[in-house]
Amino acid sequence: MSAIKQDNKILIVGLGMIGASYAQKLHESGFYVGGISARESTVAKALESGIIDCGTTDVTKEFVSNFDIVVFALYPKLFIEWVKQYQHCFKAGALITDVTGVKGSVVYAIQQMLRSDVEFIAAHPMAGRELSGIDNRCTKVFEGANYIVTPTKTNTQDAIDIACELGRILGFGHISTLSPEDHDEMIAFLSQLTHCIAVALMCCKDSTHLVDYTGDSFRDLTRIANINENMWTELFMMNRNQLLRQMDLFQDEFARLRDALAHGDEATMKEMMKTSTERRKYFNK
Amino acid sequence: MSAIKQDNKILIVGLGMIGASYAQKLHESGFYVGGISARESTVAKALESGIIDCGTTDVTKEFVSNFDIVVFALYPKLFIEWVKQYQHCFKAGALITDVTGVKGSVVYAIQQMLRSDVEFIAAHPMAGRELSGIDNRCTKVFEGANYIVTPTKTNTQDAIDIACELGRILGFGHISTLSPEDHDEMIAFLSQLTHCIAVALMCCKDSTHLVDYTGDSFRDLTRIANINENMWTELFMMNRNQLLRQMDLFQDEFARLRDALAHGDEATMKEMMKTSTERRKYFNK
Repeated sequence: MSAIKQDNKILIVGLGMIGASYAQKLHESGFYVGGISARESTVAKALESGIIDCGTTDVTKEFVSNFDIVVFALYPKLFIEWVKQYQHCFKAGALITDVTGVKGSVVYAIQQMLRSDVEFIAAHPMAGRELSGIDNRCTKVFEGANYIVTPTKTNTQDAIDIACELGRILGFGHISTLSPEDHDEMIAFLSQLTHCIAVALMCCKDSTHLVDYTGDSFRDLTRIANINENMWTELFMMNRNQLLRQMDLFQDEFARLRDALAHGDEATMKEMMKTSTERRKYFNK
Repeated sequence: MSAIKQDNKILIVGLGMIGASYAQKLHESGFYVGGISARESTVAKALESGIIDCGTTDVTKEFVSNFDIVVFALYPKLFIEWVKQYQHCFKAGALITDVTGVKGSVVYAIQQMLRSDVEFIAAHPMAGRELSGIDNRCTKVFEGANYIVTPTKTNTQDAIDIACELGRILGFGHISTLSPEDHDEMIAFLSQLTHCIAVALMCCKDSTHLVDYTGDSFRDLTRIANINENMWTELFMMNRNQLLRQMDLFQDEFARLRDALAHGDEATMKEMMKTSTERRKYFNK
């Protein structure tokens, strides 16, 4: 494959929030879309709502080998297990991609075990919601969002191009490539660390009696404290070393501000606030 | 005074973002409003834009004694200094109130030194912007926001009622009373701690090269990292012990999550995420 063609058949494995949103957008874009889910009820819903053309809970070569492109929207460990168990089902020449939020501990594992007549090109759509499941699918979350392709040395340029094209078809606003390592450092800092902060802040104390006094600051900082504990624990564990590095960076800076306050060192406090104000300007939308 | 009358004259001391917004809203509500600012140019702007009826940079008894209600919208230390220096200018029977974001270190200091024929009732409008100065005045920030009156034992019920009434006239959505101590604990946790977190997060590293990858999480957590270093350093220092307590609470929980990750203790990670998700539900607007 050197480009996506309109008659390419696309299979989505995993019809949760992201998988179902992919299915819907691709189906709306005129592609023949298949879906696999572990749950009968999810497959039935996907068929009824017309976001897939065919679907099953049974993983068979007969079904899977119909598809030119297979997108995995599973938790990382399950994704690796799935490929281990069912890779014989892929069509020869198929292109495999994913939506996994961590890369280093997934990409190489998949590429190393994968059949040589199938290529895996990893991608991370940086779009999501606090809500999960097919009922919460939403193609609007892709608009203006980041879609990051994370090729390794073994990937072909064709596969990289196709992954980027898929991002454009899905409607992402900013499509780029990063190495799996740079991706994981970036995601540890921008996304995982911020979730850790939000969780720790909510765990400080039972603050529910303060709800009437809560302004935007606390709401903004804790919006992402509403978190799927199974998915995020797995993502944290699969990016453990990077996340620990970012957490330590943050702990050091927080402790520096705390100690400045404790010692009445107003110069350090002001210097940190100036740095923070200066840097934050770049992030105004 | 037992209630606000339409012919009461109201003086705003300090025409920054909040002071000027107060002036504008009170003037729009039909009150005769005076303004005092240290800068000629600010007084001129306030007069030109019609948010005050009269204004001056000169603090004189002749001017100040015209007003029945005086609202201080100054930094806390300057507020205390002002009252020390100029309290002889107040009209006998005048009611004094403020907008200061910390209470314990301000309210008692003012009440103890104040003339016995004048009453100070403290209030904190929990509304603001990242922008400062008269040009950024905005009465919309009051809509739906919290207005907290923090009486002490020496305050009369009449003064408390008038302060609450002022909040309603200004358009606040939720008006309540708290002791200065409960206010300071609440504000240390909900507002000051969250600002410390945002500042520390921006200080971790020069993350400006990551701007293209930044999603809502990082933007939400750092919006308030754009901070006036002079005002916030003063507010932090004047609520130092409470803020240190809240920072320590947060540091402990953050370290607990970090250590769970370091040791692969998934049970603790999931338990913290569940707690955080459960508690965050109460804060959905």
